[in-house]
Amino acid sequence: MTEASQGLAVGDLSEGGLLARIFPLLGPPTGTVVGPGDDAAVLADHGGPVVVSVDTLVEDHDFRLIRANGFRTTGYDVGWKSAAQNLSDINAMGGTATALVVSLTLPPQTPVEWVEDCARGLAAAIRGLDATGCSVVGGDLGGGSQLVITAAVTGRLGGAAVLRSGAEVGHTVAVAGTLGRAAAGLAILEDGRPVEEFGSTGEELVAAQLRPCPPLAAGPAAATAGASAMLDISDGLVRDAGRIATASGVRLDLDPALLRRYAGPLLSAADLLGVDPMDWVLGGGEDHGLLATFPQDALLPPGFTAVGSVVPGTPQVTLESQATALRGWDHFAD
Amino acid sequence: MTEASQGLAVGDLSEGGLLARIFPLLGPPTGTVVGPGDDAAVLADHGGPVVVSVDTLVEDHDFRLIRANGFRTTGYDVGWKSAAQNLSDINAMGGTATALVVSLTLPPQTPVEWVEDCARGLAAAIRGLDATGCSVVGGDLGGGSQLVITAAVTGRLGGAAVLRSGAEVGHTVAVAGTLGRAAAGLAILEDGRPVEEFGSTGEELVAAQLRPCPPLAAGPAAATAGASAMLDISDGLVRDAGRIATASGVRLDLDPALLRRYAGPLLSAADLLGVDPMDWVLGGGEDHGLLATFPQDALLPPGFTAVGSVVPGTPQVTLESQATALRGWDHFAD
Repeated sequence: MTEASQGLAVGDLSEGGLLARIFPLLGPPTGTVVGPGDDAAVLADHGGPVVVSVDTLVEDHDFRLIRANGFRTTGYDVGWKSAAQNLSDINAMGGTATALVVSLTLPPQTPVEWVEDCARGLAAAIRGLDATGCSVVGGDLGGGSQLVITAAVTGRLGGAAVLRSGAEVGHTVAVAGTLGRAAAGLAILEDGRPVEEFGSTGEELVAAQLRPCPPLAAGPAAATAGASAMLDISDGLVRDAGRIATASGVRLDLDPALLRRYAGPLLSAADLLGVDPMDWVLGGGEDHGLLATFPQDALLPPGFTAVGSVVPGTPQVTLESQATALRGWDHFAD
Repeated sequence: MTEASQGLAVGDLSEGGLLARIFPLLGPPTGTVVGPGDDAAVLADHGGPVVVSVDTLVEDHDFRLIRANGFRTTGYDVGWKSAAQNLSDINAMGGTATALVVSLTLPPQTPVEWVEDCARGLAAAIRGLDATGCSVVGGDLGGGSQLVITAAVTGRLGGAAVLRSGAEVGHTVAVAGTLGRAAAGLAILEDGRPVEEFGSTGEELVAAQLRPCPPLAAGPAAATAGASAMLDISDGLVRDAGRIATASGVRLDLDPALLRRYAGPLLSAADLLGVDPMDWVLGGGEDHGLLATFPQDALLPPGFTAVGSVVPGTPQVTLESQATALRGWDHFAD
């Protein structure tokens, strides 16, 4: 399959021809009554509410095919990230993903191998992140001037969804997954020096940016443990904590002493780049970890670490009770 | 809301600021446990299988903001069409839509009014096409060099899904909705002459291209009536009939005499453009009508018209038993 694709561009194939190359790479559909190939896919009864979300990655906005230092983002990376960020949205509701549908907008000169790699990355993320019971069940292919990948995801719930609005004074603020690693990886990619100059840590941080690993077991576990509020950290800890603060009408006070452990593994890269690694921990998104609040008496589920507490006050995020500017990512302004 | 948006571009607003303008235009979420604003939306129990699909419209590929003759495609048109083509996919399975999630990729210079109009068009299509119980429950906004709108849709089924693969020899081939009107409208838009020169019919045909009206009651009615195969005609009657032929392993023989009624309303536009209107009827997609097959003894449900029959033979589409070249739309080649 791959050899036959060498040198071929998307514009050399029909839509059907391209689909025929992609389907086998996606793995068998699971949990479906009707898989890819009809007007729509049909998923098995969810036995309760259906969770649904959508996320898009755009060339030159969310990823760069080639960096100043020659570093290339592969189709595999983009496919992985698209799946990961969508799976993370279901995780953040306390649910488990049941299916992805994926739309690819492709410039005609896009190598067919890049698209096949993207399909492999989608399947690898589902497998690698243990999203059991989820598969790519359908999609759409079309032409455009810029690569755009949009995935929509469905999921099921074990109990009630965990929203952003349930945090109460006295609750513990906790994090699952990593913080600041994807942002450090992005800084390395944007620096211009070859990634190798940052050593093996550098490569790991770049991998965290390109192929994030949301902790998919943690979301349902948090729901079962009674989490009062939860979201995935996609735009930065402080900015996303601010969303819980606003939705819940509370102040979230983060403890820098508890957050410093996340900065340790970032120190050598931060030194080389001359930045404070806590900026990545507090402001960096895209690790797709979880931020949740738990009642005082709740046992934090495996994978969660306390990083602060919910306190009285106007809705905002503070660091050791000090006001902090909202940091993080906004798609149009900032 | 609109007045305050005059002259504003997307790049002048934050993502949150833009969302705050869009949400009120989408109408209240229906059938949701959790509406827009969290990591994902939560839909009520579907009480059975969940149907899911995704479709994308790309500027300069699927629509043009401005034509040679000065004709402008509005955000309303693009929003309408995006909703309509997604709702049509659920219709083609015999289901009813429950929710849309919509991702917009927007160049920073995009007028905020265009985006607001797009939101209005999404809501208007849902309302205008009687997609009761469906609403826009979430989305994603991001920047890009080109306007891209991707919607994913979920739906529920009353009974079993109607696939493409169930057509059997002796079954009746029938169509619901219109044929060739959207293609005629596209030809008018691409001709260069002002739309007015084509009279009131011209405006109606252009409207069919810009704001298609899939017959959303017909899909579930066909399922109830025992349709053996069904799809929506998005790439052209002959090409889409070929998909049923291939999936079912049968020949579909279309009767030109029965199809000629669809050409009548296209005659004056076809004369002005010097084309055979049957080319639009046979090859034009995007009306998003339904093509279905029914057992001999089934009563065709309201809205369906017989246009041919399923006959023995190798999988293909014939016109009065004559072979016909596949006509219609392919996104990369043709």
